[in-house]
Amino acid sequence: MTTIAQELQTKGQAARQAARQLPRLSTEVKNRALLSIAEALLARQEEILAANAEDCEAAKAAGISASVLDRLLLNPDRLAGVADGVRSLADLPDPVGEMIDMRTLPNGLIVGRRRVPLGVIAAIYESRPNVTVDIASLCLKSGNACILRGGKEVIRSNTVLARVLREAATAAGVPEGAIQFIESTDRALVGEMLKMGGLIDLVVPRGSAQLINFVAENARMPVLIGGTGVCHTYVDRAADIDKGVRVAYNAKCRRYSICNALDTLLVHADIAEAFLPAIARQWAEGGIEMRCDRRSLAIIEAAQIGGLSLKPAQADDFGKEFLAPIAAVRVVDSLDEALDHIYEHSTGHSDAIITEDYSVAMRFLDEVDTAVVYVNASTQFTDGAQFGLGAEIIDSTQKTIARGPVALREITTYKWIVLGNGQTRP
Amino acid sequence: MTTIAQELQTKGQAARQAARQLPRLSTEVKNRALLSIAEALLARQEEILAANAEDCEAAKAAGISASVLDRLLLNPDRLAGVADGVRSLADLPDPVGEMIDMRTLPNGLIVGRRRVPLGVIAAIYESRPNVTVDIASLCLKSGNACILRGGKEVIRSNTVLARVLREAATAAGVPEGAIQFIESTDRALVGEMLKMGGLIDLVVPRGSAQLINFVAENARMPVLIGGTGVCHTYVDRAADIDKGVRVAYNAKCRRYSICNALDTLLVHADIAEAFLPAIARQWAEGGIEMRCDRRSLAIIEAAQIGGLSLKPAQADDFGKEFLAPIAAVRVVDSLDEALDHIYEHSTGHSDAIITEDYSVAMRFLDEVDTAVVYVNASTQFTDGAQFGLGAEIIDSTQKTIARGPVALREITTYKWIVLGNGQTRP
Repeated sequence: MTTIAQELQTKGQAARQAARQLPRLSTEVKNRALLSIAEALLARQEEILAANAEDCEAAKAAGISASVLDRLLLNPDRLAGVADGVRSLADLPDPVGEMIDMRTLPNGLIVGRRRVPLGVIAAIYESRPNVTVDIASLCLKSGNACILRGGKEVIRSNTVLARVLREAATAAGVPEGAIQFIESTDRALVGEMLKMGGLIDLVVPRGSAQLINFVAENARMPVLIGGTGVCHTYVDRAADIDKGVRVAYNAKCRRYSICNALDTLLVHADIAEAFLPAIARQWAEGGIEMRCDRRSLAIIEAAQIGGLSLKPAQADDFGKEFLAPIAAVRVVDSLDEALDHIYEHSTGHSDAIITEDYSVAMRFLDEVDTAVVYVNASTQFTDGAQFGLGAEIIDSTQKTIARGPVALREITTYKWIVLGNGQTRP
Repeated sequence: MTTIAQELQTKGQAARQAARQLPRLSTEVKNRALLSIAEALLARQEEILAANAEDCEAAKAAGISASVLDRLLLNPDRLAGVADGVRSLADLPDPVGEMIDMRTLPNGLIVGRRRVPLGVIAAIYESRPNVTVDIASLCLKSGNACILRGGKEVIRSNTVLARVLREAATAAGVPEGAIQFIESTDRALVGEMLKMGGLIDLVVPRGSAQLINFVAENARMPVLIGGTGVCHTYVDRAADIDKGVRVAYNAKCRRYSICNALDTLLVHADIAEAFLPAIARQWAEGGIEMRCDRRSLAIIEAAQIGGLSLKPAQADDFGKEFLAPIAAVRVVDSLDEALDHIYEHSTGHSDAIITEDYSVAMRFLDEVDTAVVYVNASTQFTDGAQFGLGAEIIDSTQKTIARGPVALREITTYKWIVLGNGQTRP
């Protein structure tokens, strides 16, 4: 066995061992541990920021771009934000122990489901060091052990953060082994991890499409995939134009770098001449490049708006996740055409309709098969905290395990409990 | 593309197309279709039984064992039972459309989850022809399209059954394409199916361990695995001996060929001398062979019971799923030793404790991480119908997707619905 495989086995076994005890850890101890972690992150700020400074210097020396560098960076403000996030988890209800549908059967058996942790969750992620804290805290509150494997750019930051997390948690009464961090940055390690089907109950990849695909194709255990959003906003013929402009502007411009930002704007032909120049004016101010089909291009050009960045759309602009100040635009002749477009191109993350027509709204809700379907609201809301679930581990675009924001309850499972008095089956 | 791959693609596309419409099919139409199917199974009994007779003759000619032959056989009684099962599905509540946790957020957004079908479910199964009807009906009621791939021994029966199902469903208003049956018995086909990640949302293998492992290792889509049960019954020092004997007898002898039959009996040392001879007497009458550890063997031999089939256990008898009139037996010195044994050997299907000690029962419920955990009841109850869920598609031993009996609700998912009035995210 290689050294890498050995480190993994040892850490995997330790996590599995902790996972036998974690389901029985009281909410009180878990919350105390979360508060201790939040305190420790602030108390040991100097140590954490020093490690992060080293990471950032190394990244700069390696010629990393300014935008990526910004994602690696920790500072006192950001660290305080991370600590706040951990503290707020303590206020959320504990999903573990919830009893579901308990009832007495005619033969006297009492049967129901009890919510329990999944067991061991492995996270493989890139870039931002706050992910280490977020995932470890979510796993802790939900009674799961975790194995964390962060990106090599912030290995120093992550190593210190993991130590702080582990020490604070253990001192508060959390079983040793509950938080495992892989220090090796060897790339072969991910492949090894994905073979550990007996030790890991769920693996969550967060990062590039390449990483996600590699995990999906090679994992021997269930995978939770998300974060890839080709998101549509469809402006119906019966849209309120002001609402439509406000919502589409927000969906693209509030933050264009997130997975639930608008990628494609679909506009009904009957409203296109009124709506398209209005949104184009706003998007021009927001610095958004519009990649337009023939009809939308003609309408916008005719409006002679200054400062526009306008291009004919290529076929592959529809179905592309831009993560950039770019939107694809298309005119459609009917709701059906919009639904077909979304069916063909959506990744099932977040899609919206703008309409005042009740029946059209209902059809959109019925027929769009997407994790989060919006009527008259910005797709930027897709987020566990926005939905009142607290922090999230990922936005799932899967249909099984969990869909949309994956928060505390979504990383648990249940077991059936049957209380009898000597019953036998006839 | 091979002919096989073409047949699969065509059927997969047809199923996917139907799956776009099925979520909106009313409960009324679905129930009417189920009742039509039940009627058609009886009305076309002659045709079905004739095909089954051909299958059975061919199987006999191929020298298949009597017990396997019995699994292939349909007769008027069995067919009536299958039809009854379909009819009873019409009485169960429709899981589709259920609204979960709908609420209004401070910003006025109305947010919640709506239960929807998964989409396309593929089932790969062996032997019994009733599975074709069971799975197709469960999928229909839950709004899922299905692709069925049965065993070659009953290909004639299954082909006729699938035709009957499809014709009755379509006549009742179910979209064409909702029920797909693969007529080719080429083995390469399963491998091809498992590559259809874009067309199939979930694959359910039912059959030999070899089939299940092949599917688990090769599927590009989520897999629902179950049906492998190494099941324990632990008789605690504080057990009521009569209850224990009754329950352990039932757990082994009612039907030893099912996955939730008892495989290993663990007995606390303090009660072993009283309990073991009592169960041995019963099991001797039931024709059960006991494979005993050293201590249990000594106790049972000393009791000099007639008609016993008694053997020393080999190490691998613990952790073996017998599916036969055989039980492994071991004496343990404590609850902890029993819990460790179960932790090590259970497949997480069904495990039971017999005890009158409240705190011991609570510890067992807390610490055994199994799909169905029993106190003072027979593990033979693990079954969707027994738990009041109606028919089941499989008993899952996974932690994700669903655990224990997989009935109608367990083969659905949800989507988030957000109803706004122009809200944008700050």
